[in-house]
Amino acid sequence: MFTYSLEATSGHARAGRFTTPHGEILTPVFMPVGTVASVKTLSPHELQDLGAQIILGNTYHLFLRPGHELIERLGGLHRFMNWQRPILTDSGGFQVMSLSGLTRITPEGVRFQSHIDGSYHMFTPERAIEIQHALGADIIMAFDECPPYPATRAYVADSLQTTLDWARRCREAHGDNDTQALFGIVQGGVHDDLREESALALMQMDFPGHSIGGLAVGEDKSDMLRIVALLDGILPVDKPRYLMGVGTPGDLLRNIARGVDMFDCVMPTRNARKGSVFTWQGRLIVKAARYKEDTRPIDEGCSCYTCRNFSRAYIRHLFQSGELLGMRLASIHSLHFYAELINMARQAILEDRFEEFTREHLPRIDETIKE
Amino acid sequence: MFTYSLEATSGHARAGRFTTPHGEILTPVFMPVGTVASVKTLSPHELQDLGAQIILGNTYHLFLRPGHELIERLGGLHRFMNWQRPILTDSGGFQVMSLSGLTRITPEGVRFQSHIDGSYHMFTPERAIEIQHALGADIIMAFDECPPYPATRAYVADSLQTTLDWARRCREAHGDNDTQALFGIVQGGVHDDLREESALALMQMDFPGHSIGGLAVGEDKSDMLRIVALLDGILPVDKPRYLMGVGTPGDLLRNIARGVDMFDCVMPTRNARKGSVFTWQGRLIVKAARYKEDTRPIDEGCSCYTCRNFSRAYIRHLFQSGELLGMRLASIHSLHFYAELINMARQAILEDRFEEFTREHLPRIDETIKE
Repeated sequence: MFTYSLEATSGHARAGRFTTPHGEILTPVFMPVGTVASVKTLSPHELQDLGAQIILGNTYHLFLRPGHELIERLGGLHRFMNWQRPILTDSGGFQVMSLSGLTRITPEGVRFQSHIDGSYHMFTPERAIEIQHALGADIIMAFDECPPYPATRAYVADSLQTTLDWARRCREAHGDNDTQALFGIVQGGVHDDLREESALALMQMDFPGHSIGGLAVGEDKSDMLRIVALLDGILPVDKPRYLMGVGTPGDLLRNIARGVDMFDCVMPTRNARKGSVFTWQGRLIVKAARYKEDTRPIDEGCSCYTCRNFSRAYIRHLFQSGELLGMRLASIHSLHFYAELINMARQAILEDRFEEFTREHLPRIDETIKE
Repeated sequence: MFTYSLEATSGHARAGRFTTPHGEILTPVFMPVGTVASVKTLSPHELQDLGAQIILGNTYHLFLRPGHELIERLGGLHRFMNWQRPILTDSGGFQVMSLSGLTRITPEGVRFQSHIDGSYHMFTPERAIEIQHALGADIIMAFDECPPYPATRAYVADSLQTTLDWARRCREAHGDNDTQALFGIVQGGVHDDLREESALALMQMDFPGHSIGGLAVGEDKSDMLRIVALLDGILPVDKPRYLMGVGTPGDLLRNIARGVDMFDCVMPTRNARKGSVFTWQGRLIVKAARYKEDTRPIDEGCSCYTCRNFSRAYIRHLFQSGELLGMRLASIHSLHFYAELINMARQAILEDRFEEFTREHLPRIDETIKE
């Protein structure tokens, strides 16, 4: 059911195709985050129209509410939220650490307290797989421990052994399920040798794809880029690589340049809901007073629903007045921009001019427009 | 630019057409409320798709934010919010009383304090017309005083004289503007003689349509229905009648039966945002626990976007999780229902079976579904 084919490279950047039961994904790809079975403020049809190929759901959140068993009884996540294209779920490993209350990690798994009602729960590798089987996403993740940053080398090394043991148990629990692709997650903090050990051990387990976790958690950007470049030289070329939780438009370009195929991040939607959107000219604070009478769309060259129909002045007014339509219009624009950015990056790879493309856009793409 | 034609009657119920510069309105009609140039959570294209023929904007709110002059500079309200169909604005009379702080009514006008920043402003009849000219709605309202309920007869009688004087001043200020239709507003509380006096005085001023204000403000429903029936016998048959701020689906049917052509109310959208929607079977509390695993749409016979695509279980989950998409989907359904209800009522009038139609639906249409 799952095949990855590498179509072209440009430097270390890769253009590929990943086939899933819900259709083909052209890579590199950016996945909007639909935490609790909804990409905030948007309908599935809007997501489709703005070019989202695949979205992400959060296992931790869906487990707590409405519950994976309920979603399974209602036909799985695709049917529940009426999204026909591919879905990826994370394993809950990151959220149990970052969101929940009292957390206790043992070799068996993680005991944690719900951030919603304080109830106690236990995630084990087997449980994380069971939940993700019930949700039914196309691509699912092994249960991992994501060490905090900073952490001692000894902590990260210990944690890595746990994560590798859990990866084996996830592989085992996943069994011969061939309708969902289970990815292993590379950990090891900012330590090159641990990262290498992690990648090599996962490769032994023959996962159909590899995630890179534990980055974008507070380390220097240079550490992130070094680790990603290192892994690019280790991970197999014939399987997709997914850099979890990254990032700004510039981060996407820099990591595509280092062989990454898949990304997810709340940034475009979260920032949009606060009135800050991404454009080819940089970040635009659309709720700023300077746009009060600006009849131009957010981005004059943009073909998204928002830019085809509404002025900066109107969107700014919606934010000023607390009207939810403002959040929607800004979210549509920013996700459309991310989809377009990554499509253009792909085209540049196919035409072997990715470095030029990056050089052209990197200088301003993450900067805030001041004019 | 404005012509009303009465196409058919069934009992006292009327089916007509009202032509405006932005197109023809089939009456009876329900107007969704877009307070600050946005029908909350919805895009103009969604409103069009769900069958909204005309929407309402609030002069008081738009005056305070973003300001009528800004909207005028940006090309008027239609262009500002990208809505191509007709718009009606109220005069701000109701909101200065109900929303603002310290209010002082004099023969000259009303001095009031903004509910947003406490700043002081003065609305006079001339000012209300000036603001509405700047906004550029197709149908605009004379500035009136809407007396509170209950109020003494003496207060209501005095207030009515002020409102009639203001109506004359609005007529004068409107001048020969023929791109906007100015309606006079009948006041007079629950007093038949004052209502009659009000209607007759306005008819002398030859407005192209009449609004009925000061109802649905706390009086008994029987008083409302009696006053509307009384006015049906007085107001000219060749001009549209607009009952302001009404109401439930049952209220619509009862007042169509008494000769009303136009309605507006925040109820379908406000209730929807709280998880309560209207259906042909009654009100459905879609966020109720009993719908947790209900795979049916809100209304099985409904053709709206929400019912074509999503289950009660999913919408309930969105409300439980505080996801804004829930409010949107519920708003779409309820406004679609209001549009369909009034279209079906119109059809029943054309076929002279409106009383049967009402008899069939009134018993349950305002009741809450308990099953």
